[in-house]
Amino acid sequence: MEIAQSLQQVKSSYIREILAAASDKNVISLAGGLPDEKTFPIDLMKPTLENLANMPEVFQYGSTAGYGPLLSFLNGYFQLPETHTAMITTGSQQGLDLIARAYVNPGDKVVMEAPSYLGAMQVFGLVQANIVTVSQTEFGPNLEELEQCFAEQKPKMFYAVPDFHNPTGVCWALETRQKVAELCIQYNVAFIEDAPYRELRFSGEALPLVSDFCPQNSIVLRSFSKIASPGLRIGVVTGKTSYLEPLIKIKQGADLHSSVPMQALLHGLLQHNNFATHITTICELYKSRYDVMYAELEKQLPASCVLKPVDGGMFVWVEIPECDTFELAKSLLANGVAVVPSPVFYPEGSAVKAALRLNFTNATPEELTVAVTRLADVLNAL
Amino acid sequence: MEIAQSLQQVKSSYIREILAAASDKNVISLAGGLPDEKTFPIDLMKPTLENLANMPEVFQYGSTAGYGPLLSFLNGYFQLPETHTAMITTGSQQGLDLIARAYVNPGDKVVMEAPSYLGAMQVFGLVQANIVTVSQTEFGPNLEELEQCFAEQKPKMFYAVPDFHNPTGVCWALETRQKVAELCIQYNVAFIEDAPYRELRFSGEALPLVSDFCPQNSIVLRSFSKIASPGLRIGVVTGKTSYLEPLIKIKQGADLHSSVPMQALLHGLLQHNNFATHITTICELYKSRYDVMYAELEKQLPASCVLKPVDGGMFVWVEIPECDTFELAKSLLANGVAVVPSPVFYPEGSAVKAALRLNFTNATPEELTVAVTRLADVLNAL
Repeated sequence: MEIAQSLQQVKSSYIREILAAASDKNVISLAGGLPDEKTFPIDLMKPTLENLANMPEVFQYGSTAGYGPLLSFLNGYFQLPETHTAMITTGSQQGLDLIARAYVNPGDKVVMEAPSYLGAMQVFGLVQANIVTVSQTEFGPNLEELEQCFAEQKPKMFYAVPDFHNPTGVCWALETRQKVAELCIQYNVAFIEDAPYRELRFSGEALPLVSDFCPQNSIVLRSFSKIASPGLRIGVVTGKTSYLEPLIKIKQGADLHSSVPMQALLHGLLQHNNFATHITTICELYKSRYDVMYAELEKQLPASCVLKPVDGGMFVWVEIPECDTFELAKSLLANGVAVVPSPVFYPEGSAVKAALRLNFTNATPEELTVAVTRLADVLNAL
Repeated sequence: MEIAQSLQQVKSSYIREILAAASDKNVISLAGGLPDEKTFPIDLMKPTLENLANMPEVFQYGSTAGYGPLLSFLNGYFQLPETHTAMITTGSQQGLDLIARAYVNPGDKVVMEAPSYLGAMQVFGLVQANIVTVSQTEFGPNLEELEQCFAEQKPKMFYAVPDFHNPTGVCWALETRQKVAELCIQYNVAFIEDAPYRELRFSGEALPLVSDFCPQNSIVLRSFSKIASPGLRIGVVTGKTSYLEPLIKIKQGADLHSSVPMQALLHGLLQHNNFATHITTICELYKSRYDVMYAELEKQLPASCVLKPVDGGMFVWVEIPECDTFELAKSLLANGVAVVPSPVFYPEGSAVKAALRLNFTNATPEELTVAVTRLADVLNAL
């Protein structure tokens, strides 16, 4: 049976392949984007887990938009205005897929920063969007390029990860957030704000969402995969009700609704008195790992590499001298360290800067130190 | 933001609207397709539920194809040949959506019986398939029509529910199964076998899957929503590996993977010694309800109505004299009984027979008796 044309353009995820290779026990993986399993708040989930057997209603079919008690709770948790609503998705990845399917016709223009999140390129690729990129500075997207792009190309939406961007770790400055919101309103571009790393801030002050400055023009994707558990596959999409209704319509056909016991479990967790403390603990842990890795990178990498510090998230982005980064990643793997080379984060046809994405959340300080030494050895030998 | 063209054709699910109205406590609902909440094998799931807190690995990201231990188990459970494999989906509804997205280009022809499952029409509508229908006899699809359709229209796939069809309850005869498989092979049409009601047989002998006669040309969608719990949202797709690979590629973008704790829970349940007995118990319960409803329908309905007995599943289909069935459904609702009128089960443009779908699994015998009286009162007054 011949596959659909829309799928013929989608390459299999290179990250999945690297992750598979990285499961070798002699390899230290900085390639994934996994939270540390030991951080999962299983103790805080335990009371709800044990009580699920007394909640027969969660085993029945549920409503497409989500489990009522969780939705009510989230309205308060996210302080949604009256015009807005929340819907539950099977991970925030599904939220992104639903947005692409509900709004994007083949050829419609979708703006992203380059580099950008691979999973977003996949879903927009599947609906055959025309992906247009703008470059990224240390404060967020290049605003001149962005305005020119909005004015000339008339895109339908701008997809971005303003808090601790994947893969670069960049956190947009306040002024950039305000200006992007203004431009989205001025040029009638919907802002799709993907915020999976937002709570993982370990230094600096929390900033408002970009969407706080353009609430009528935006949809926000929230994740609990980094602060609670990715295995549950429960994400949340918020936005004005008229923006969300088409997503619910698609979700009905896509999977009817997300797992209700998992929604009840998340609801129990979010209500737990110690959940806020749990997030603080994770941030402290990840900061300590980041500090080790960053110090080692500064100490050991050749001067030709460019490093930027981050205030949170899961990744450090290392710009390296121009080279075949796929070949480099292979050599690194042979030397016992897995990383992701930059080209996989760029849409086809855009100019690629040689770089590596390094994850610091799922290895011990000792492993991080050894991994950086292996990385530096290979880079120094280039 | 304007919605995508593909979505503009999709009507909101009429069933959802009826279900909403049917939640009124004065209404007896025969409209849904819900299993009885009291049948959920929560006792059999309890040991696994309580043990999840000791399985941190299920809270981590998982593999797109599914949770390893469950997949291994299912290979044996379904006795898959070596060429075949299983993948886990977020309910079997997602399996259907993935098939449509992976294989159907706009305008590709997909054959269904008329009437047919609403959720299938939704997903094939979303990918802008050209839905071609064949009529249904009491033995399954009209085989002459089907062969003519295959020969003249060269469709890509034939989607069907051969075991206790939704909405008609028809179970395909053995000869029909063999002949359909032959035709699929002869005309190179993929057979998409949706089997959510297969285990709900309460009389007659179990028959082989249609796919057993054309294993290289088919994909099977399995559900645990009717025999375990729909809230979990765990379905299984099986087929030859080359057929499933494109589905896994789409699922990566659609939701990365399905909930791992829910997969572990299903795995525990399927391994439980009493699971087979549990299925027998459900079938007996549903048979007792069916017997009551069918006897009352025979006794009370006007002679102008045509009823066919069923050997399992969740529905009885009542053909009624030509009328505005939507208006009739509204009158019935006003008289305290919710049903689904036939037009919602027909793709747009196909000839509709006036009929009502009645569900017998989620009401007590007393409620079923009262509901049939209310139904008969309105039909007799027509």
